[in-house]
Amino acid sequence: MIERVRPEVDAGRFPAKRVLGEACVVSADIFKDGHDQLAARVRYRCPGEGEWAYVAMPYDPDADRWAGAFLLDRIGEWRFTVEAWTDVFGTWRSGLEKKVAAGQDVAVELLEGAAIIERAARACKDRSARGSLTQAAAALGDANTAVAARTTVALDPALHALVTQHPARDDLTEYSRQLLITVDPIRAAFAAWYEMFPRSQSGDPKRHGTFADAERQLPRIAQLGFDVVYLPPIHPIGTTFRKGKNNTLNPLPNDVGSPWAIGGEEGGHTAVHPHLGSLVDFERFVKRANDLGLEVALDYALQTSPDHPWVREHPDWFKIRPDGTIQYAENPPKKYQDIYPLNFWTDDREALWNACLEVFRFWMARGVRTFRVDNPHTKPFAFWEWVIADIKRTDPDIVFLSEAFTRPKKLLYLAKLGFSQSYTYFTWKNTTYEIRDWMREFTDPDVLEYYRGNLFANTPDILHEYLQRGGRPAFRIRLLLAATLSPLYGIYSGFELYENVPVREGSEEYLNSEKYELRPRDFTTPGNLDAEIRRINRVRRENPALQRADNLTFLRSENDQILFYRKSMPDQSNDLFIAVNLDPLRAHESMVHMPLEELGIAGDAVYPVTDLLTGAQFRWRGARNYVRLDPSQEPAHVLRLERGGPA
Amino acid sequence: MIERVRPEVDAGRFPAKRVLGEACVVSADIFKDGHDQLAARVRYRCPGEGEWAYVAMPYDPDADRWAGAFLLDRIGEWRFTVEAWTDVFGTWRSGLEKKVAAGQDVAVELLEGAAIIERAARACKDRSARGSLTQAAAALGDANTAVAARTTVALDPALHALVTQHPARDDLTEYSRQLLITVDPIRAAFAAWYEMFPRSQSGDPKRHGTFADAERQLPRIAQLGFDVVYLPPIHPIGTTFRKGKNNTLNPLPNDVGSPWAIGGEEGGHTAVHPHLGSLVDFERFVKRANDLGLEVALDYALQTSPDHPWVREHPDWFKIRPDGTIQYAENPPKKYQDIYPLNFWTDDREALWNACLEVFRFWMARGVRTFRVDNPHTKPFAFWEWVIADIKRTDPDIVFLSEAFTRPKKLLYLAKLGFSQSYTYFTWKNTTYEIRDWMREFTDPDVLEYYRGNLFANTPDILHEYLQRGGRPAFRIRLLLAATLSPLYGIYSGFELYENVPVREGSEEYLNSEKYELRPRDFTTPGNLDAEIRRINRVRRENPALQRADNLTFLRSENDQILFYRKSMPDQSNDLFIAVNLDPLRAHESMVHMPLEELGIAGDAVYPVTDLLTGAQFRWRGARNYVRLDPSQEPAHVLRLERGGPA
Repeated sequence: MIERVRPEVDAGRFPAKRVLGEACVVSADIFKDGHDQLAARVRYRCPGEGEWAYVAMPYDPDADRWAGAFLLDRIGEWRFTVEAWTDVFGTWRSGLEKKVAAGQDVAVELLEGAAIIERAARACKDRSARGSLTQAAAALGDANTAVAARTTVALDPALHALVTQHPARDDLTEYSRQLLITVDPIRAAFAAWYEMFPRSQSGDPKRHGTFADAERQLPRIAQLGFDVVYLPPIHPIGTTFRKGKNNTLNPLPNDVGSPWAIGGEEGGHTAVHPHLGSLVDFERFVKRANDLGLEVALDYALQTSPDHPWVREHPDWFKIRPDGTIQYAENPPKKYQDIYPLNFWTDDREALWNACLEVFRFWMARGVRTFRVDNPHTKPFAFWEWVIADIKRTDPDIVFLSEAFTRPKKLLYLAKLGFSQSYTYFTWKNTTYEIRDWMREFTDPDVLEYYRGNLFANTPDILHEYLQRGGRPAFRIRLLLAATLSPLYGIYSGFELYENVPVREGSEEYLNSEKYELRPRDFTTPGNLDAEIRRINRVRRENPALQRADNLTFLRSENDQILFYRKSMPDQSNDLFIAVNLDPLRAHESMVHMPLEELGIAGDAVYPVTDLLTGAQFRWRGARNYVRLDPSQEPAHVLRLERGGPA
Repeated sequence: MIERVRPEVDAGRFPAKRVLGEACVVSADIFKDGHDQLAARVRYRCPGEGEWAYVAMPYDPDADRWAGAFLLDRIGEWRFTVEAWTDVFGTWRSGLEKKVAAGQDVAVELLEGAAIIERAARACKDRSARGSLTQAAAALGDANTAVAARTTVALDPALHALVTQHPARDDLTEYSRQLLITVDPIRAAFAAWYEMFPRSQSGDPKRHGTFADAERQLPRIAQLGFDVVYLPPIHPIGTTFRKGKNNTLNPLPNDVGSPWAIGGEEGGHTAVHPHLGSLVDFERFVKRANDLGLEVALDYALQTSPDHPWVREHPDWFKIRPDGTIQYAENPPKKYQDIYPLNFWTDDREALWNACLEVFRFWMARGVRTFRVDNPHTKPFAFWEWVIADIKRTDPDIVFLSEAFTRPKKLLYLAKLGFSQSYTYFTWKNTTYEIRDWMREFTDPDVLEYYRGNLFANTPDILHEYLQRGGRPAFRIRLLLAATLSPLYGIYSGFELYENVPVREGSEEYLNSEKYELRPRDFTTPGNLDAEIRRINRVRRENPALQRADNLTFLRSENDQILFYRKSMPDQSNDLFIAVNLDPLRAHESMVHMPLEELGIAGDAVYPVTDLLTGAQFRWRGARNYVRLDPSQEPAHVLRLERGGPA
């Protein structure tokens, strides 16, 4: 019986996710009636490989679990299953040992052993090994040799190794399913994102920015330590029902409109907004970014403005109402007349879906390897499963970020379907209780098999009240939390200037939102958060414990305003203890509790910790230690436990 | 998408278990891309029924879960799945309501509604409903009627009800699997067992007891409140390598041997030991038991003595060694030469497996409906799955108790394969920590879907050190624990006389074990535990909270020697709080903690509890309450919370 094989998502319906260079540990419950010894192995296949490979799964008696590991050294879809069989020789040999030790007559046992080895010889395809096995079988069964001498042959460790290497595997049993693993590039699981509107980068509120202007921001963004620059849609913007500043319905003639109202006279999803420049300019932007070590992520929003070419060319790709008009987006009684949703179940759906696929491929051909997908939960799940699989078949390195601000089950389902990472509820989790409760749900080991949360601290849609009221310290706190709670995090341009004015009291929308107007910024404004951002991104790059999601533990803090948690490598080679004051307005102190037993530190021992933010060293003693965090100074400690270091 | 359907065991590989008369609650995660409203139902089929039945699954927005329930009013194998579809009309109607409330023009919406109702009419098989739907569609689409009047028709709750009852279900989606539920008789899940050797019931150590002697014990056993009388094997016993008293290898001529060495000259698994009487005597014993409300459970041990007829008639059903002898049982270097294991994978396995099946059917034909299966983990899993399914097909009321003292995974796997209940590790769990830890593992909701533990307080094989050292109070403690921690429990004859002498220091075997000799007992010995047994069995029958396994919660007790737990009905109609002193040698006191918030009791309120063992009433106040338990008096409280009762 082979049960509870891991990794496995929904009984094998979906692949588990891993990244390049990881060891894939496969484990299983394996057992059989009776008392025979068993043996097991993983059978696995690397993408593009026709042959199966094998790796042994040794038994861990403490866990009553079998496990083996292999290196994931190629991006793409891996396949594996588990095989087990009765270790007939091992079972027999162990009984023989005990009988010999008890001084029993083992003449008949030797004949049984000879038969076992003969069966192994018959099954053996290696000529030389087969010869050795046949010889050993003959020796064990040779009635002319003394039992004692034959017993010595029988118990020879070399014979044991030989038969273990070439067993008969008469009852080889395979797990009922073959399972899949999607191996992504590392940036799918570890990256810092920066969102920027190219059109705001001219430096002049009157002049529409271009890709060339945006290019000039790239060195700054790279120096801040980001890995991905994400651009909202760069396509022509509709004029029909265009939104004015602050989402008003009566735009002025020079209002630029929302980039998500995709499509105009100049083209749709495969065109660039003429004010931004040309496709060549865009390709140069991507090239410059890549040269600086930055990925460019493009927005992928499957909707159109009423002026999109598809509306004229394929009106049947939209829902036609009984009065002949095209159905605009709505959330009754609200109307979004500047946006047409696509009708994915149109009779002409094959053409529509292919057109949507071609949008991806068009930008991939221009250097884009990462897509931020707008509202995927409002498009068919079947579409995502199909389109992501199609792309990954040829380009398994493509990364898809899902923007699904919806119920957890839908959010997680999109991750199962193939999205590499997902936006989260992080912006709305600001207290100890909220953060712990939410992170516990989304760092459940079963969930982490397929889900990776990208913790954006703000977005053009979400300026949380916490940031509105907490000012600069609040931005520093949220930056530290996002960057240390998760290997994936992001900020939206303006965060570094702690822009915090909402359009009105009680709203999470920005005043003068960049979604509807140009927002040039002076990023050199004194007091900006550049130093803090650079610092935490450096700490992330230097500390492997901050580069994975499966190693977060919340620890006890006696003051609820101070969140205390651990990020640790499995071998404890990099072991961080992070204390964050969640109150942006006041200094707080707390006794925080170190898990001494787990750390193997004696109850009264002194051990050094280094604050990676400030370089300060502390000598901590015992389980309870004192921290005081003043948000106007340093709102957090990121403490590295120094093992064998200076005390 | 339909996910996480419950009950489901191992992705539908095995049935879940329920008992007759229970409501089967089926729940699921159901969701769809977009914002449409959904509807769902359970499709289920009762055993022996060709037609599917349906029950609606309403949505619980708090849990984001859908659930529906149906009554399990027949024993046997039930089948179900989940269906869901878009509630097109409900979605449209809800939008219409909001638009109307906002004063928007809904003329086009009414035409859309007419089309939706027309589709429902076309799909409708009920002639009268179809007429009403067609009429409503016409009314909504009638351009000659004012929009306001048509809106009134559209929002008529009667129309809503009609379309909800006869929806088009254009996108009806079925869960990917059909799932099974085994419905057992109630005694499969709630029963008190009593194990008795008929041969010891003559009252005379010199005379082999008979079924008639055993019959005379039945009224006493029934009066003690037991439900099942379990008899060790009643078959002829082998003489070859027969074991003497206290498991010695040199028996005296009049030693009776172990009943598990099945088979002699007089027959095998379908014969009765001639000293016990005849088959007719056995049938009378069963009849008498049934008349007293007792079930008879027979031992089913698939092994033979060397003298079993199968050894002569079917030597190929055993493993023949290279020297021509039959392989006896062994656990190297130990030899059990009085026992031959069957070779279930013999070439003649079809005949062997059928013979084993026929053993069941032979005793079923003689009134036995419950079998206690000896060491099932040493026989093939495939055999059990086959044989239990074959029997349940014709006789779904048969109950199988698995005696698998093996690793948890094998023990649980046998439960999945079809065993109705299972022995447990209870005898070895005697401290607070041991009991809580072990019970937590085996009362996990996923485990309880298929596993039912039968907590034997002792067996002929297991006299735990705790009983050896703790004397009479220890027996009372273990009785109370077994009978209240689990709806299934049992004792082995002699428990009521607190027999506690081991064969030697450090052994769990009884001195003069009944396995190897006659052990007549005087059950009327003063100080016996009859009153205690009668009392707790009465409390079990009177309190539904003690009749199910899924309602156990451990509560805080400030003294580790006092275990405190709750057994409660889901509606709290029967709510028991049980405190047991685990130390048989000393009185202990503790503050125990009541879950006031869950109980809806104010922090300082006074509430009455009644001790069901003694009838004593206490007025408890607040969360922390004092208990003192003296094992020489009463080692436990079984407190019933009195709601609205006398304070």
